[in-house]
Amino acid sequence: MIQIAVIGHGVVGSGVVDLLHENKAGISSRAHETIRVKYILDLRDFPELPYASKFIKDFATIENDDEVRIVVECIGGVKIAYDYVKRSLLAGKSVVTSNKELVAAHGQELLELAQERNLNFLFEASVGGGIPIIRPLSQCLAANEVTEIAGILNGTTNFILTKMIYDKMSFDDALALAQKLGYAERDPSADVDGHDSCRKICILASLAFGHHVYPEQVSTEGIRNVTLEDVSYADVWGGSIKLLGVVKPCGDGKLDMCVAPMLIPKTNQLWRVDDVFNGILACGNATGDVLFYGRGAGKMPTASAVVADVIDCTKHFNARKYLYWDKGSPDLVIDASKSVFPMYIRATGLPADELTAAVEKVYGSCQKLTREGVDDEVAFIVPAAPYGEQCSKRQQLEWCGVKVLGFMRVFAD
Amino acid sequence: MIQIAVIGHGVVGSGVVDLLHENKAGISSRAHETIRVKYILDLRDFPELPYASKFIKDFATIENDDEVRIVVECIGGVKIAYDYVKRSLLAGKSVVTSNKELVAAHGQELLELAQERNLNFLFEASVGGGIPIIRPLSQCLAANEVTEIAGILNGTTNFILTKMIYDKMSFDDALALAQKLGYAERDPSADVDGHDSCRKICILASLAFGHHVYPEQVSTEGIRNVTLEDVSYADVWGGSIKLLGVVKPCGDGKLDMCVAPMLIPKTNQLWRVDDVFNGILACGNATGDVLFYGRGAGKMPTASAVVADVIDCTKHFNARKYLYWDKGSPDLVIDASKSVFPMYIRATGLPADELTAAVEKVYGSCQKLTREGVDDEVAFIVPAAPYGEQCSKRQQLEWCGVKVLGFMRVFAD
Repeated sequence: MIQIAVIGHGVVGSGVVDLLHENKAGISSRAHETIRVKYILDLRDFPELPYASKFIKDFATIENDDEVRIVVECIGGVKIAYDYVKRSLLAGKSVVTSNKELVAAHGQELLELAQERNLNFLFEASVGGGIPIIRPLSQCLAANEVTEIAGILNGTTNFILTKMIYDKMSFDDALALAQKLGYAERDPSADVDGHDSCRKICILASLAFGHHVYPEQVSTEGIRNVTLEDVSYADVWGGSIKLLGVVKPCGDGKLDMCVAPMLIPKTNQLWRVDDVFNGILACGNATGDVLFYGRGAGKMPTASAVVADVIDCTKHFNARKYLYWDKGSPDLVIDASKSVFPMYIRATGLPADELTAAVEKVYGSCQKLTREGVDDEVAFIVPAAPYGEQCSKRQQLEWCGVKVLGFMRVFAD
Repeated sequence: MIQIAVIGHGVVGSGVVDLLHENKAGISSRAHETIRVKYILDLRDFPELPYASKFIKDFATIENDDEVRIVVECIGGVKIAYDYVKRSLLAGKSVVTSNKELVAAHGQELLELAQERNLNFLFEASVGGGIPIIRPLSQCLAANEVTEIAGILNGTTNFILTKMIYDKMSFDDALALAQKLGYAERDPSADVDGHDSCRKICILASLAFGHHVYPEQVSTEGIRNVTLEDVSYADVWGGSIKLLGVVKPCGDGKLDMCVAPMLIPKTNQLWRVDDVFNGILACGNATGDVLFYGRGAGKMPTASAVVADVIDCTKHFNARKYLYWDKGSPDLVIDASKSVFPMYIRATGLPADELTAAVEKVYGSCQKLTREGVDDEVAFIVPAAPYGEQCSKRQQLEWCGVKVLGFMRVFAD
């Protein structure tokens, strides 16, 4: 029998306890061990639960109990979680976490600590919820050099964009609906401003390219400025708008990364990833494009990934898993101004033909997008160039009297 | 340094050797070991290759060389491959194979042999080529009870169907093109008659549900009878035709399985899996639907999966991987006549209104599908019922003077 402790009895933590109970027989048979929750740490009391007696409030009880072999961290945030995870590893316990903020901020240090002590530090649930991605990326694609990863990594923003695209809801209305349905927090900024996606692409980049990437190193833009007009022009162009996290290696050891809303064409597999679903496209030099798709969040999908890590852990006490990456460096990620993208520009301020002439003059060539019955604005797709250059040209356009209403990267296949 | 032997220098075998060379640095760093091909066994000579000196013709050389820790089997077929794989395991060597025919026919016995000797027998490449599926299914979804697996598992037939759907090519022309492009064999029956898909769904079913399923136990139908008319009606209905392998547990330990061309709706994630790509949808009771998508065949994608297994193997000599399933039984799979499906029926022989009346009389209700300008046939979708019942009703229809031209299962979401 393997005894574990679950820290935090919120959405994910309670899901873990439920799942271990619900799928008990199958889990024991696959783990070749009975897995028993010995403690649940939470500041709150849950006297109504059948397992109320397992609740404790002092982490030291877990830390000092040698029978606890695995600590499952589900409190989220960085401060307390970091302290407890570190102390767990120092006390000789393997750790499983769903906490992307923690892994993105301290992954390297915690992996190193685990390695030194021959322990596991596993975090399948931190990216893509119930979608297997950490393990496939580190093991199944191990024979590849990864050439790109692009992902729809946040279910809340994908739900909002889906409502804007299919139901023509405004951003504000779609956000309000997401909040009503429990998909978005009252303070939605971690989701809608792209920070959650950023943490996740940082974890995937660290894993695929071997050095810790910190969220602060990655240019991050959310979806607050995406309008229904932009959504319509994307449709005219033959695609839609998705919040993507993207990383590719530059060849000199550096990484080209960003998180931003982008136009993607219907021909891209990510185009069909709608609602709260996540999709991650990984390209390897041998395997080509591989897509992983599923529920990126939610109580049971996330708990499913956590418990899979717990099972894996029970089978590898004496043969550490080999998740690992090296320290990062301040210049690991190239400046966002150097990333090359075609751009989508929605503009007004001049008559349509003068707008087009101005864009053609500044950008050389462009693809014009028009919507029936709309004559006070035009949208354009302009050729790929470094983002910094695209911004200077936008400035030039504005000097010509053009008012830029929408300005977004295009994700080319 | 870990020394390996590669058996068979065909498409996959040569891909493995190439990939180990091409991505050498990354592979060594991820395996924490240099992996060296010591022998390549093939009946043919390849004097032009830089590594010509590695070729041997006698398997006993490998069998008796204790320096060879891993044998990579890429000859395909069952007879010789089975003999060599068994002898490799008996000689204390772990085995990695891409051979679905072998795993589908002898997987249980070979897994048992490997387990008894504390060796690995790995076969990620046997299903889905470069798509990670064996490992995610066995590890990442380990906390789930799998409720269904449905997959487009054969790239050749998917290419043919895609050409029929998008380019209106006939089955014969699309097959000829697939042969010309090297996607189909000169004798295409393993692909077009569904046997390849059957082997793969058997492997996935064995893994997910824990008992060996033999291909002979699974009702298997290929795509030879699919016509352009069927493709058109599927489009009218709101979907298309795909060759699917499907398995779900019945609840009493038995499995409901089949391989057949089916109508799938556009709302299903598998609908967008086109060309030579494969897609596998796995549903877990905690995680919900998860889709894996990528190149299901081809030299480098398949080699990528084989080499990933080799890397995994080098890290687990003393901690066997836990792929395993028990023996099968003759009544493990329920009779195909008991599997419940809605059906698609294309019919002629009576005037349209009489056809409809006959179908309504026999089936109770139906959804009628018509194509513009076509009045000598009608298609219908009739409600779900056991397949055996659907076939008796078809017989009844024929007694009424209806001529059934198309008769296919509908894959309901």
